[in-house]
Amino acid sequence: MVDINQNHVSTQSAITELTLEFIASVNSALDEGKSEEAINLAKSLHYADLADLLENLGHTRREELVEALRDSFDPNIFAELDETVRERVIIQLGNSRVAEAVAELQVDDAIDVVEELGEDKQLKILASLPKNERALIEEGLSYPEDSAGRLMQRDFIAVSFEWSVGQTIDFMRDSEELPTDFFDIFLMDNEHYPVGTVPLGRIIRSNRNVKLFEIMRKHIKIIPVSMDQEEVAFLFRQRDLMSAPVVDNGVLVGTITVDDIVDVIHEEHEEDIMRLAGVGEEDDLYSAVIDTMKSRFSWLLIHLLSALLAAYVISLFAGTIQELVALAILMPIVATMGGTASIQTLTVAVRAIAMRELTPSNAYRTIGKEITVGVLNGLIFASIIGFIVYAWFDSALLGVVIGLAIIVNLIVAGFVGSSLPIILQSLGFDPAVASSAFLTSITDIIGFYVFLGLAASLLL
Amino acid sequence: MVDINQNHVSTQSAITELTLEFIASVNSALDEGKSEEAINLAKSLHYADLADLLENLGHTRREELVEALRDSFDPNIFAELDETVRERVIIQLGNSRVAEAVAELQVDDAIDVVEELGEDKQLKILASLPKNERALIEEGLSYPEDSAGRLMQRDFIAVSFEWSVGQTIDFMRDSEELPTDFFDIFLMDNEHYPVGTVPLGRIIRSNRNVKLFEIMRKHIKIIPVSMDQEEVAFLFRQRDLMSAPVVDNGVLVGTITVDDIVDVIHEEHEEDIMRLAGVGEEDDLYSAVIDTMKSRFSWLLIHLLSALLAAYVISLFAGTIQELVALAILMPIVATMGGTASIQTLTVAVRAIAMRELTPSNAYRTIGKEITVGVLNGLIFASIIGFIVYAWFDSALLGVVIGLAIIVNLIVAGFVGSSLPIILQSLGFDPAVASSAFLTSITDIIGFYVFLGLAASLLL
Repeated sequence: MVDINQNHVSTQSAITELTLEFIASVNSALDEGKSEEAINLAKSLHYADLADLLENLGHTRREELVEALRDSFDPNIFAELDETVRERVIIQLGNSRVAEAVAELQVDDAIDVVEELGEDKQLKILASLPKNERALIEEGLSYPEDSAGRLMQRDFIAVSFEWSVGQTIDFMRDSEELPTDFFDIFLMDNEHYPVGTVPLGRIIRSNRNVKLFEIMRKHIKIIPVSMDQEEVAFLFRQRDLMSAPVVDNGVLVGTITVDDIVDVIHEEHEEDIMRLAGVGEEDDLYSAVIDTMKSRFSWLLIHLLSALLAAYVISLFAGTIQELVALAILMPIVATMGGTASIQTLTVAVRAIAMRELTPSNAYRTIGKEITVGVLNGLIFASIIGFIVYAWFDSALLGVVIGLAIIVNLIVAGFVGSSLPIILQSLGFDPAVASSAFLTSITDIIGFYVFLGLAASLLL
Repeated sequence: MVDINQNHVSTQSAITELTLEFIASVNSALDEGKSEEAINLAKSLHYADLADLLENLGHTRREELVEALRDSFDPNIFAELDETVRERVIIQLGNSRVAEAVAELQVDDAIDVVEELGEDKQLKILASLPKNERALIEEGLSYPEDSAGRLMQRDFIAVSFEWSVGQTIDFMRDSEELPTDFFDIFLMDNEHYPVGTVPLGRIIRSNRNVKLFEIMRKHIKIIPVSMDQEEVAFLFRQRDLMSAPVVDNGVLVGTITVDDIVDVIHEEHEEDIMRLAGVGEEDDLYSAVIDTMKSRFSWLLIHLLSALLAAYVISLFAGTIQELVALAILMPIVATMGGTASIQTLTVAVRAIAMRELTPSNAYRTIGKEITVGVLNGLIFASIIGFIVYAWFDSALLGVVIGLAIIVNLIVAGFVGSSLPIILQSLGFDPAVASSAFLTSITDIIGFYVFLGLAASLLL
């Protein structure tokens, strides 16, 4: 008899079993050299929680735990580990142990693990794999990175659209090599081209003599192996798909299911958010200090160059500043307002492009709207700042000068913040790389130039 | 006989049928007053594409098309429309037409549409609904916003874990009110508490006399109705779930499937990215100019206050700047470097918190790492900038002063950028609101103070 009460307890507490107290217990067991106790704790976890535990432990303790788990290391942990941590664990376990684990994974997970390895390591591990797994993984690797081909599962059920429900059920009962769990049956025409899908529920509820094409979903989306995973994810989200067939040269070669898409969506969002901030994708909590430093360095360097340009613009007005030091005091206000407004506009535009809401057909309308917003907020902030400056420095004209600079800068921010990502996109670049660097340098430079230039001609 | 070739054509071209040319044709049909042609074009689209088309059209043309489609308006379009556009379409179609449409939607989609309406409109539409739908929607609305209760579907199949496969299949064949498509059968104990799930594939492949608990997935995740959707999404992603049972007071009341999670993940990411940039979530391509302006305004105002503070710090050193105007020229460099480094650190930390990688158990380690990165990049950029300044202004001491300021500022950026989101999270706030405003104001103020302060004491 099954113990039906076990779930009552475990689900009352935290979301997962990996609580902070749990991590603390593992840490202290390792501290006290009780590796037996640590192993038992670790083994009580689901593999996804165990992967999270390994990510959470410090470097030395992680190595201790991996070593202790060496012989019983669940291959599924690899698929769940963060790349940086995974690489370290792979080095620690050694090629032959890793090859054993990879052989046990599903093909799409195995590709996920193998594709991140250096070429040398990849070849060694592939060489230690059973012939069959090796061929499937190599085929997967032959498709471009981030393509549907890399993402798809090779285990699926596809039958002729002319089969009956009864025939299909008998086929599934007799077949030995079915996927563990599956939800749709794919129908092919005589040339192995997918023509529809039948959700399993419809099979169960239909009579044995019903033909599959009578109950199939006709409006399926067929995905070419080479399609970029971002486009695949868009299709799944837009059409609320559960699964889709993948074709290579018109022949059904695999399927993608929505649970694979969840990870893709995460990856793509991460890419966007990191690019907007000017951080490399490989820059995460687990990367070594030196790698993080390098990933940040190049972006800081670009910002330095743009700051130098802004400094040069200021230097053109050195004499003006010397005569009226209030200008130096007020410069950061002009820069901050322009920079903030441009990043706001940029973020909305980048997100809209990613969601395919912003397209060439409404680009002009969007840019026009952003300019209008710039004008309106420009007028309001010009009044606020102008009044503050007038009160602070007792000069109405200085208030007018900074007000005009703010208006110009917010209009520029609206225009550049919306048009730059659109232009980048139409040139085939990722609009997120536009990022703050270019934008804030443009608003800084124009802002300083207008502010100091107006001051030089109106105030002195 | 089914036309099995229809798919060959449509899928060769764009990802979806809604191409730029298509939008252009609709636009020109509406321009020329050929509403019949526009309707036919629109009706040829999948409802998700039709929703995208409506979002893409200008305000007037959208109204024309909605008017033309009034009688044949597919209710599913509502669920796919962006909130701002949806609100306008709802106003245009009127309460009774909208109530008709809502009644045809699945309960979770209906809740999605109704929950965004103003209270007044909500009551009117609920009042026009059939009693049954109304009760289900009202029950859904009684759960907190963004909770599992709002997200769940009420149509699902749940049977006793003691049933046999044969019993279950007969039940499904005989039952009239099954969900259209479903993938898992939920098993309950005698108190209606979920104890496992059986994927349909296992039912088809098992003998009729096998008991369901023998083939069930035991390690399921049970979700309380009140769980926040962000936590639900985390569970689905971490455990690669396809579906999960939702319980209210220990009784199975609904299910959540992974395709609902795809939208949640999008929403949560959007929230993060928008908050980091200081833009309201309601600020999208379709919101009116005045709403966009308001959404940006408050953030700009916060930035203005922080810029005023920075300006005040500079004003303390007005005399120093007057004597050495090079300081005014170089100030933007100090500010830019600190601001950029702090945003990089912040973004990595916010993302890691969202992914539950950054927890109290590794917080100190992370902050320590970020400070180290700040020291290292600080040293490198201090040398680069110091040398440039020395060459530009022919003053080694000025180079040393700005170099020191850069080092201090990058260390502050690493410390504040990583610890601020951690502190916010532990206080129960969304770490993403930390955002650039607070951070760049801190690095600006400290940067200016150190730079000008050092200059005042060392150079004059």
